[in-house]
Amino acid sequence: MKIEKMAGERFKEKPADCVIDSHALMIRGGYMKYVAGGIYSSYLPLKRITRKIERIIREEMDGIDGQEVQFPVVMPASLWEESGRYDSIGEELLRFTDRNNTNMVLGMTHEEAAVQMVRECAQSYTKYPFMIYQIQTKFRDEARPRAGLIRVREFTMKDGYSFHTSQEDLEQYYERCHKAYERIFARTGIPEVISVASDSGMMGGNLSHEFMLLTPVGEDSIVLCNECEFRANMDAAEHISDIERNVVSAPLEKVYTPDIHTIEDICEFLEDKTCNSCKAVVYQKNADDTYVVVFIRGDLEINETKLVNYLKDQVHPAVITEECGLHAGYIGPVNLSVNGDFIILYDKSLENRNNLSCGANEEKYHFKGLDMQRDVPEACFYDLAKAYEGGICPRCGKKSIRISRGIEVGNIFQLGAKYTKAMKMTYTDKNGEKRTPVMGCYGIGIGRLAAAVCEAHHDGNGPIWPKAIAPWQLHLCAVRADNEEVRLLADGLYDELQKAGVEVIYDDRNVSTGVMFAEADLLGVPLRVIVSPRNIKQGIVEVVSRDRTLSLQIGIENAVENIKKLLA
Amino acid sequence: MKIEKMAGERFKEKPADCVIDSHALMIRGGYMKYVAGGIYSSYLPLKRITRKIERIIREEMDGIDGQEVQFPVVMPASLWEESGRYDSIGEELLRFTDRNNTNMVLGMTHEEAAVQMVRECAQSYTKYPFMIYQIQTKFRDEARPRAGLIRVREFTMKDGYSFHTSQEDLEQYYERCHKAYERIFARTGIPEVISVASDSGMMGGNLSHEFMLLTPVGEDSIVLCNECEFRANMDAAEHISDIERNVVSAPLEKVYTPDIHTIEDICEFLEDKTCNSCKAVVYQKNADDTYVVVFIRGDLEINETKLVNYLKDQVHPAVITEECGLHAGYIGPVNLSVNGDFIILYDKSLENRNNLSCGANEEKYHFKGLDMQRDVPEACFYDLAKAYEGGICPRCGKKSIRISRGIEVGNIFQLGAKYTKAMKMTYTDKNGEKRTPVMGCYGIGIGRLAAAVCEAHHDGNGPIWPKAIAPWQLHLCAVRADNEEVRLLADGLYDELQKAGVEVIYDDRNVSTGVMFAEADLLGVPLRVIVSPRNIKQGIVEVVSRDRTLSLQIGIENAVENIKKLLA
Repeated sequence: MKIEKMAGERFKEKPADCVIDSHALMIRGGYMKYVAGGIYSSYLPLKRITRKIERIIREEMDGIDGQEVQFPVVMPASLWEESGRYDSIGEELLRFTDRNNTNMVLGMTHEEAAVQMVRECAQSYTKYPFMIYQIQTKFRDEARPRAGLIRVREFTMKDGYSFHTSQEDLEQYYERCHKAYERIFARTGIPEVISVASDSGMMGGNLSHEFMLLTPVGEDSIVLCNECEFRANMDAAEHISDIERNVVSAPLEKVYTPDIHTIEDICEFLEDKTCNSCKAVVYQKNADDTYVVVFIRGDLEINETKLVNYLKDQVHPAVITEECGLHAGYIGPVNLSVNGDFIILYDKSLENRNNLSCGANEEKYHFKGLDMQRDVPEACFYDLAKAYEGGICPRCGKKSIRISRGIEVGNIFQLGAKYTKAMKMTYTDKNGEKRTPVMGCYGIGIGRLAAAVCEAHHDGNGPIWPKAIAPWQLHLCAVRADNEEVRLLADGLYDELQKAGVEVIYDDRNVSTGVMFAEADLLGVPLRVIVSPRNIKQGIVEVVSRDRTLSLQIGIENAVENIKKLLA
Repeated sequence: MKIEKMAGERFKEKPADCVIDSHALMIRGGYMKYVAGGIYSSYLPLKRITRKIERIIREEMDGIDGQEVQFPVVMPASLWEESGRYDSIGEELLRFTDRNNTNMVLGMTHEEAAVQMVRECAQSYTKYPFMIYQIQTKFRDEARPRAGLIRVREFTMKDGYSFHTSQEDLEQYYERCHKAYERIFARTGIPEVISVASDSGMMGGNLSHEFMLLTPVGEDSIVLCNECEFRANMDAAEHISDIERNVVSAPLEKVYTPDIHTIEDICEFLEDKTCNSCKAVVYQKNADDTYVVVFIRGDLEINETKLVNYLKDQVHPAVITEECGLHAGYIGPVNLSVNGDFIILYDKSLENRNNLSCGANEEKYHFKGLDMQRDVPEACFYDLAKAYEGGICPRCGKKSIRISRGIEVGNIFQLGAKYTKAMKMTYTDKNGEKRTPVMGCYGIGIGRLAAAVCEAHHDGNGPIWPKAIAPWQLHLCAVRADNEEVRLLADGLYDELQKAGVEVIYDDRNVSTGVMFAEADLLGVPLRVIVSPRNIKQGIVEVVSRDRTLSLQIGIENAVENIKKLLA
């Protein structure tokens, strides 16, 4: 490919709206073009990268007996009504009507389509297990697309769906797929990706893992243990509290606290630590504005995903009106009353605690000496708190929790029978009895993976693509291509290298070496070969690696042979 | 791949709703699954076929300097407003709003996206020519999807867009692409595909060609000449009339024709041929119901696409009311008056004619002796007639027109500056002047091509896939796999052949040979190898080709070597 004719432009200035490096470099390098919020076109370099990633993924999916299939992008709503997700998923699911006024959706995931595809043809146990996968465009109407290819609305995804006759068989296959994913990330150049236990969210099911590239610019928070192998997504990490009950319980005592509204203020006033208080955080359900009052240890925060998962309903911070009966700043578990429907939840951090301060549900009054066992005997406790740096590891019990940021590059789910049951898929077992199969599902976002590799491998001048997914293997620079000797040698090398099967991008434009090399850096091709009048005088061509670890002069005579060796 | 685990089922009964063989066979063979009208999922065999077709197309597109890119499936309406097509295209363009109430469309073609992608980065003449292409999902909300993969709503398409600084350069590239298309169809197994001049329709532009597989089940009518190279789509084929003017013009004479309403009746009444009459066909514009009266030689039919192209408006057959002033059955060019707006058009078949019969625009009266020159001197004549079998070839002039049916498997268009002008794309030429580039565009429907190959290559038992696109190269049948010797030999062959790089589909199910071979026929793999107890006793395996031209017994000893040779 000649760079002169290549669509896309490379430039120096960092675009104003790019907050992460991969986004800025992929815009600056002519990899992608903005079309609408979260919707991009891809130029040749990115297309070549994603095709190589897709090839690696295909090989690994075929290697674990995956069958490549294709589901539609546009699906009838009726399919999603069968599973119940037409109603349960929010606006991310793009709904519209076709010319016949039939309700349709744009596929953001394909569990329903997968079950629809196989439920008639997998009615005997002998068919199982099997896995079908596709690499296809998806659309998810994100409220806030951002960070380039990290969070888009339209994206290409590999999504696989496995079907099993038992949970044990699903678990075995899940493990095989986990290993295949590790190989995929290693082969694409980011072996450092780790898997973390995750929240299953809208997918349902029991166990799931996310594959994370740890990086400060990641969108996800990951909880890791410095002492053991524990790692989990923030939303799936149990919070462990180790503050014990005091031996002596003080009596519950009402305190006049006229100008005190916050936990910090009441603890300062009582000369106690915030961990010895019981904080109220109030939400309302999106669906019907039911109040949800959550009590938690004063120094902790609520993880709203945990809360939403428990409630199976979306929530928003409450609007506390006079009519509702709550006294903002004075809410506590004793004598609490709310007008209308409400839900009260207690975080586990309060279980068995005593001698706590809390609101008295009365303007200008707090309690001290709250004893959960004595004063709130009916309380049930749930894990709703956020894990934090230095907290206790739920596996080894040491105070060794570390919080990192990460980009999710893949995920795997044990879905169980959620979809097969809802969509009435059955098979006949050895004994002639009808049973419901269980499913796993396995996703990798192709564009996001490319962006993640770029985050992991770049310098200030551009991406440094790993050889396996680099758009080309060799970047040939003809410095002063108007010089006849340079033109002759460079054109000859271009032809010979291409004939030898080397993927070459060729820059024979009449531009300065500054521009030429800056643009080569932006394309991030592993090896650069420079033909110039000065080099020709010395009888050599220069070979430089994009990561700057290699810089050689090789004789013109055996240049092609030696370049091939360097690439091998 | 083991057939046992493969998703999809094969069966014997022809589905009731399949009108063409490729559709029936691809449903019966477990290639595709109905999801909604014109929307299918693809199982592994079809996916393997389309991936092979895509690879061939990629190679040929790269071979004519195409750059693979990707445009979005979902595009903002604003992009289509720039070109004017948001308003001009009908309901086939699926329009909807996203969560922010922005108008969006599903891509059915990508001229707008192509111009948007390159208009900023192709501002110098040195960049030209270049061609970008993608292989991507498209959606076209067809009113009547039918014939399986021939006319669907969701489909995968290769669409390419070339940009040029002159019409000459476009024409040169168009010719290169034409040749690449011929190679693509030859490589996929249908070298008999012909290109025919076509109507450019909604794409705009001057010259276009369709690539047609001639088959009686095709949806398109094609006009061919038996004597010369002329070939064109029915909508683009000029009709040539060779009936000369009579030497003597009779006077125009009103005739009382009380019960005569049709051209046939008036000609019978006057004892003349229908080709000596002037027939009126009346339409109304869809937009505003304006009447469109078309006069044509009595024995010819109107080609409505030609009419619509001339009018640049859709039409429907007229509803002739009393108020409109037309007298149904008595409409003629002399003394014609219509109340309100109307358009009168004359087909070229009437040019210079005389001694014609026609309606007198008065109940119960016709004229005879109509002379177009004398009686309708203001008439302008257009080519609006349908070509017909045995008609005159517009190229060689012989009465050698033949009408065939065909499946359109590809098309190429010289678009000119339609999109680049509307979307304000310019470049600076050698002299520093701003100019508008011209474009070509080039499409191939992948699924439709697969179906067309199936139409061209099948028998009553299933498809006979050409080797280059067959889902597998070899179909291994273990007859009586419960027999230990059979199991051992067949499993061994499966392993060895796979190791040797042969694509094998393996049937080791305990089914009858009848079922096993019928299903093998439906999968249409070129070569079948049969391991059976009887064959083992004879020390051989059987090799049979799907097209029944080959039937061999080869020794077990060198089976793998010999099979590899047969496949080479």
